[in-house]
Amino acid sequence: MMFKKTLLSAGVAIATMVSSAAFSSAAFAAEKVDLLIKDATVLTMNTEKAVLENGVVAVKGNKIVAVGNADLADDYVAKTVLDVDGDIVMPGLINTHTHASMTVFRSLADDVPDRLHRYIFPLEKALVSRDMVRIGAQLGNVEMLKGGVTTYADMYYFEDEVAKTVDEIGMRAILGETVIKYPVADAANAQEGIQYAVNFIKQYKDHPRITPAFAPHAPYTNTTEVLQQITELSLALDVPVMIHLAESDRENEVIAERSGGKSPVQYMADIGALTPNLIGAHVINVNDHDIALLKKHDVGVAHNMSANIKSAKGVSPALKMFDDGLRIGLGTDGPMSGNTLSTIDEFNQVAKVHKLVNQDRAAMPPVKVIEMATMGAARALHMEDKIGSLEVGKLADIIVVDTKAPNMVPMYNPYSALVYSAYATNVRHAIVDGNILMQDRDISTVDERSIRDQALQFADKVRESVIASGEQVQ
Amino acid sequence: MMFKKTLLSAGVAIATMVSSAAFSSAAFAAEKVDLLIKDATVLTMNTEKAVLENGVVAVKGNKIVAVGNADLADDYVAKTVLDVDGDIVMPGLINTHTHASMTVFRSLADDVPDRLHRYIFPLEKALVSRDMVRIGAQLGNVEMLKGGVTTYADMYYFEDEVAKTVDEIGMRAILGETVIKYPVADAANAQEGIQYAVNFIKQYKDHPRITPAFAPHAPYTNTTEVLQQITELSLALDVPVMIHLAESDRENEVIAERSGGKSPVQYMADIGALTPNLIGAHVINVNDHDIALLKKHDVGVAHNMSANIKSAKGVSPALKMFDDGLRIGLGTDGPMSGNTLSTIDEFNQVAKVHKLVNQDRAAMPPVKVIEMATMGAARALHMEDKIGSLEVGKLADIIVVDTKAPNMVPMYNPYSALVYSAYATNVRHAIVDGNILMQDRDISTVDERSIRDQALQFADKVRESVIASGEQVQ
Ligand SMILES: [Zn+2]
Ligand SMILES: [Zn+2]
Repeated sequence: MMFKKTLLSAGVAIATMVSSAAFSSAAFAAEKVDLLIKDATVLTMNTEKAVLENGVVAVKGNKIVAVGNADLADDYVAKTVLDVDGDIVMPGLINTHTHASMTVFRSLADDVPDRLHRYIFPLEKALVSRDMVRIGAQLGNVEMLKGGVTTYADMYYFEDEVAKTVDEIGMRAILGETVIKYPVADAANAQEGIQYAVNFIKQYKDHPRITPAFAPHAPYTNTTEVLQQITELSLALDVPVMIHLAESDRENEVIAERSGGKSPVQYMADIGALTPNLIGAHVINVNDHDIALLKKHDVGVAHNMSANIKSAKGVSPALKMFDDGLRIGLGTDGPMSGNTLSTIDEFNQVAKVHKLVNQDRAAMPPVKVIEMATMGAARALHMEDKIGSLEVGKLADIIVVDTKAPNMVPMYNPYSALVYSAYATNVRHAIVDGNILMQDRDISTVDERSIRDQALQFADKVRESVIASGEQVQ
Repeated sequence: MMFKKTLLSAGVAIATMVSSAAFSSAAFAAEKVDLLIKDATVLTMNTEKAVLENGVVAVKGNKIVAVGNADLADDYVAKTVLDVDGDIVMPGLINTHTHASMTVFRSLADDVPDRLHRYIFPLEKALVSRDMVRIGAQLGNVEMLKGGVTTYADMYYFEDEVAKTVDEIGMRAILGETVIKYPVADAANAQEGIQYAVNFIKQYKDHPRITPAFAPHAPYTNTTEVLQQITELSLALDVPVMIHLAESDRENEVIAERSGGKSPVQYMADIGALTPNLIGAHVINVNDHDIALLKKHDVGVAHNMSANIKSAKGVSPALKMFDDGLRIGLGTDGPMSGNTLSTIDEFNQVAKVHKLVNQDRAAMPPVKVIEMATMGAARALHMEDKIGSLEVGKLADIIVVDTKAPNMVPMYNPYSALVYSAYATNVRHAIVDGNILMQDRDISTVDERSIRDQALQFADKVRESVIASGEQVQ
């Protein structure tokens, strides 16, 4: 009963809000629910950005059935009650772009120039396998869930292995099987990659928490024909397409040469590859016309600030895209880029670097950052009808963030506290699809220690391989 | 015995190093010491940047008496042995610039324009008191120690209250009493501020862990005469002077007007205020000539990336200053600016934003960031003979960082892991002056919970005061 008052502000509505579901049931008898979260500072992330002090969230099955103020608690009898003592209760974070399996390579050669082509592609050629993908994804899942990520969008190889790990831990994910013109671990060429993806999509199309997808690596690492073929297949199969887009100088050069001087986004538009199924990661090198094209075609955008500035690639005009109404959310990129997988680690940098480049301390206020981590990210993945906010009828993907850690005290404004002060380790509980997967930082569905030990054993192989190759490490 | 091999690299020496102190005692009988840390990945941060795998650090009294490889452990009998199972053991972090007491204002009005003059000064006028300073400093100390900060340099009011809290928790600090031309809580004018500072300095001059200092707020908020008077007093009393320097546009304008167009650094040089006792915070608006002046006069520099970009003030040429051999280390600024107090939270941003502005992914590599957090910071505070590295004869200020948290696995390069992946909460143990102040995140010298509760109570007063003033909150 400690954190009752937050000093709320212009742009932060203090709501007195009782859901209609609650009203309909409250009159005579308490309704049975599976989970009741009470005494919460609820960031609903609904259209009004309502914040409830001493708020309540009720969950039945895998859905949210009520969100409201303290007295709502009396209307429900719950199997499980979480009294969170004023802590922040908010939608689970949605990581719009990652390569979770690459955790096993984290902290390798972080500052090598032309790193993707000179270092990462050869490293992956030597070491990517079903085992590597599974081991890396398991570690990445643990890291993400402990950092409050409940849904992520992944691009890698052997995505059926990633799918098994997501199924096991109980998270939600869009998993994209890579298509690329080079020979890779699970395909000798792009056509084999497409076939692998199609098989994977058929296998997982009806999974309740996993959305299989195509992941053409980038425009410049695939041919026009392959990009068009994937576009058609994605529309026919009704699955997402994830791609690195407008990210690098090399991409600009190759696409300009291929298309007679077009930008990557213009090229993609002209070949018919911009569709509402597309999610573009990075989207740094875009002009106003490119941004208008992305909006027109309803493309989702993954904004990966940390990876983009670490690689000195530049700052995406993400704030403009957000303000222009594009579907845009935060991502971390892979752990050789980011290097961590919770979008909480992005918050600080997203807020501050946009202030810096806009030369305006009021640019990118915390509430926008949190929207880009929740509803914005849900929109980027075209999942805004299912996740991204705490509203009646949405899937119960919910996290609880500690507000008593020294870095979170005091909390006059919960958005500021989250963006400028929070650590991924401040996430206490994580609920996905109505299931409490993590309680007081303890994950119930997988064995964190054995996952870590597996990853450490695999890291020994990585070391041997890198040393044997004579490649540079730092 | 899990983390034996780190893939070390150009710029990271794998040392086989046994200290001379160890050699002299090892021949016949085991030497008695107070603390032995073993099975450590030791980042010595000595001149060679030696990294010891399976390393050992021995402490006797408040000093380091040996640093070396595993077999060194046999040479000592210790009262306390910490087997850290491969975790990182490194010098305690040194926060070169903060206002610890301002924790009680954290998350207030983060994005208000002209915030210092329009918001913070009035807020402080209404609320700064001995109580506020003590309560805020206690919370700040807890946050810093838990984040691996063992020494900090503070500028605020009632610094004798801060001193009591530092004494109590057992940390090390330079504490600067503010001098400013406006009426403030503990002085009606600059002369009263100077007198307060002189009294404080006399009281704490011989404290083993506390260095009292003058803290003129900034060149533009003090007169030339006061700045000169403080310079003379600091030389006579042999104490540091801490000042906000070359930070803001307003400072540039006022000083240019006062001095006939000079830069703040040139002005300070010309009035005789640049001395080896001076520590300048921020140092953003400097040209090459200013940087040369700071070097010539042996001035220390506190680099506060996070605060500077959050306020959109710009990016200090800190990398150039470091490469030019200036005394420069990391700071966080106060928790209304930073907003957290562990310099671990700066690492990521320092590395990445310098890469961004230099358009070079190899700029500001992790080892430089860690140097700026340890030896560089020690040099900035003119304490490099006492702290900043793990070497025989230095004071035993040591931290242990968890390398098994999911975000730290695997660890091919410990500097990369610290800079790109670590959270302040990954700090397990903290030792200051030979005393284990925190073990497994539990602080032994103060009651963290009651400190937090005090701060929360004070936050209620802050809320009431801000609401009563009708001031904007976000
Ligand atoms: Zn990527
Ligand atoms: Zn300051």
